[in-house]
Amino acid sequence: MSTFVLVHGSWHDGSAWQAVIDHLETKGHRAFAPTIAGHGKDVNKNVNHAQCTQSIIDYIVSKDLTDIVLLGHSFGGTIIAKVAEAISDGFAGQRQRIRRLIFLNAFILNDGESLTDNIPPDSQVLFDKLARESDDNTLMLPFEIWREAFLNDADLELAKSSYTQLSPEPYQPFIDKLDLQHFYSLSIPKSYLYCTEDNVLPQGEWGWHPRMSNRLGLFRFVQMPGGHEVMFSNPVGLAEKIIVAGRD
Amino acid sequence: MSTFVLVHGSWHDGSAWQAVIDHLETKGHRAFAPTIAGHGKDVNKNVNHAQCTQSIIDYIVSKDLTDIVLLGHSFGGTIIAKVAEAISDGFAGQRQRIRRLIFLNAFILNDGESLTDNIPPDSQVLFDKLARESDDNTLMLPFEIWREAFLNDADLELAKSSYTQLSPEPYQPFIDKLDLQHFYSLSIPKSYLYCTEDNVLPQGEWGWHPRMSNRLGLFRFVQMPGGHEVMFSNPVGLAEKIIVAGRD
Amino acid sequence: MSTFVLVHGSWHDGSAWQAVIDHLETKGHRAFAPTIAGHGKDVNKNVNHAQCTQSIIDYIVSKDLTDIVLLGHSFGGTIIAKVAEAISDGFAGQRQRIRRLIFLNAFILNDGESLTDNIPPDSQVLFDKLARESDDNTLMLPFEIWREAFLNDADLELAKSSYTQLSPEPYQPFIDKLDLQHFYSLSIPKSYLYCTEDNVLPQGEWGWHPRMSNRLGLFRFVQMPGGHEVMFSNPVGLAEKIIVAGRD
Repeated sequence: MSTFVLVHGSWHDGSAWQAVIDHLETKGHRAFAPTIAGHGKDVNKNVNHAQCTQSIIDYIVSKDLTDIVLLGHSFGGTIIAKVAEAISDGFAGQRQRIRRLIFLNAFILNDGESLTDNIPPDSQVLFDKLARESDDNTLMLPFEIWREAFLNDADLELAKSSYTQLSPEPYQPFIDKLDLQHFYSLSIPKSYLYCTEDNVLPQGEWGWHPRMSNRLGLFRFVQMPGGHEVMFSNPVGLAEKIIVAGRD
Repeated sequence: MSTFVLVHGSWHDGSAWQAVIDHLETKGHRAFAPTIAGHGKDVNKNVNHAQCTQSIIDYIVSKDLTDIVLLGHSFGGTIIAKVAEAISDGFAGQRQRIRRLIFLNAFILNDGESLTDNIPPDSQVLFDKLARESDDNTLMLPFEIWREAFLNDADLELAKSSYTQLSPEPYQPFIDKLDLQHFYSLSIPKSYLYCTEDNVLPQGEWGWHPRMSNRLGLFRFVQMPGGHEVMFSNPVGLAEKIIVAGRD
Repeated sequence: MSTFVLVHGSWHDGSAWQAVIDHLETKGHRAFAPTIAGHGKDVNKNVNHAQCTQSIIDYIVSKDLTDIVLLGHSFGGTIIAKVAEAISDGFAGQRQRIRRLIFLNAFILNDGESLTDNIPPDSQVLFDKLARESDDNTLMLPFEIWREAFLNDADLELAKSSYTQLSPEPYQPFIDKLDLQHFYSLSIPKSYLYCTEDNVLPQGEWGWHPRMSNRLGLFRFVQMPGGHEVMFSNPVGLAEKIIVAGRD
């Protein structure tokens, strides 16, 4: 039985995982879904990437979670890479903190890059414009993009109800350049779980897979049908694949 | 409940959709399958691309179909792009003609290109040779290519019976360069439905997806198993995915 | 009913196919799984590619197998290409030896290339190092790579039990440059059967499909879920797809 820590992506908070957690627990696992600093509704959105990372480290340490399978979705991939740098090496006598990393249609940045370095030019322009037009350096995803590109595998009703759970995304963590030298030296096992209809990054030159996934070097590759938001459109199927991606 | 207009590809006529239409109607939808000018058996094959397009416009207007989901398969993708240019904008007081476009393993040409600009050099040479050897500027697909590349997901019996439904394809519409500036400015929602075993265009550099699909910009991406001719090899599965690709 | 000859890949011997053969026979087919020279346990590993090929030719000729569907997995693809060169053309009055070739996540080398010419630079370095460190110019696959990259779709127990069936792979056949001019002129029908989660060659630039498959020109493309070792992780599903890939 495993202990999963599920780190959400942009516009989400930890509540996005509830149906996935329910199924993981049904199968006898433990699962936790912290909310990243600056995320969720009615919170201070003035955060940078380091603060986002620290909030997840604090969550894991405060709950004294060990031997965890740490999963990051989308933007959450940039968080778990930095979390792993900070807490993957147990001290003498300590139990191992992280047993495996799972990247779920997640960003894996090259050393020295930001998230926005890894999205197509037209998305860069759109995100920059949305952030500048906000009064708190955040960006909200237009519903049309959510419905067509994120929830392509769901009906309109689910696209609408899930959209109400979103909140504006802090922009600073998107543009912070990350030092990932240590991450790329970690020997911790890694999996990439890829949903094959995800079109949030256009497939091909700018796609999640194999562009991001291959940066991991040796990794376990797992696929499932679905778009970017399978925690909403197919939480049971996702939970099953998380178990496959996370087992020894 | 939706109204679908299904536009066939090369060598086909509207009868190719019969089993798909039957299933769409079982699910409560309406579906129409016009035959493009110059297509089908025992007709004048001396047509250009504009005449092909006009025949579908005439069909939709004469039946006064409105609020339609307009699907194009293969070559039919070049037709629906031009049809959408002509009738997507309703006049004041008119009902909207086209609610959504679906491209089913379909050509999406760049502005100013022809279909043959978008196929590999060896196919260009083959098509040109077949057309020159005909006495009416048409080309018939060799059975071996039909069986191996088009019906790869079917047994030999179905490959043979479906082959008898084909007729020679007019060559002129393949080489006509299309003005698509207006198409690329249309705000009408678009879906790309991709059958993952389609090898009619070799996958990769010359493939349907993501090469063609990404030209749409924001679009809904839907996938299903199968080759280029799922209207024959899996019409029920195709109808189900057309409903997913076509819903709001 | 067909006669299948299944040629294994590196580190394997013919016994890897037993569960696949059982299912093919249940469906009324005949299937044979010779062991390539220099492969299997407790044998002389001092072989080159020509000797590997000759051992399969000898097997087919000695059993007087005709009208066969000849399948090669992984490294076995380089073998069946050379076997087809040698015995695909029946003499007058003879029955046809080979009815179709199936490449199962298999190497298809360009004329004049070796297998190692077709793997990523880091794998070339690893294989060369492993061979030099052996005392008999062989290389054994590290378990970690087997578990993560080859058996990604299996549980740890199966990864362990199947690993005990492996034996060190002769290195010389990996580096022999193959004359494949005749192969590329053969008109024998060909299929490529691709398992979509195979990450033994990293997907994309260095992947099996479409990089290798497209070298076949006109071929039948068949896909199934699974990693590189579906003869272990899903032998019944593999047998079903071999039948689809191998039928007329």
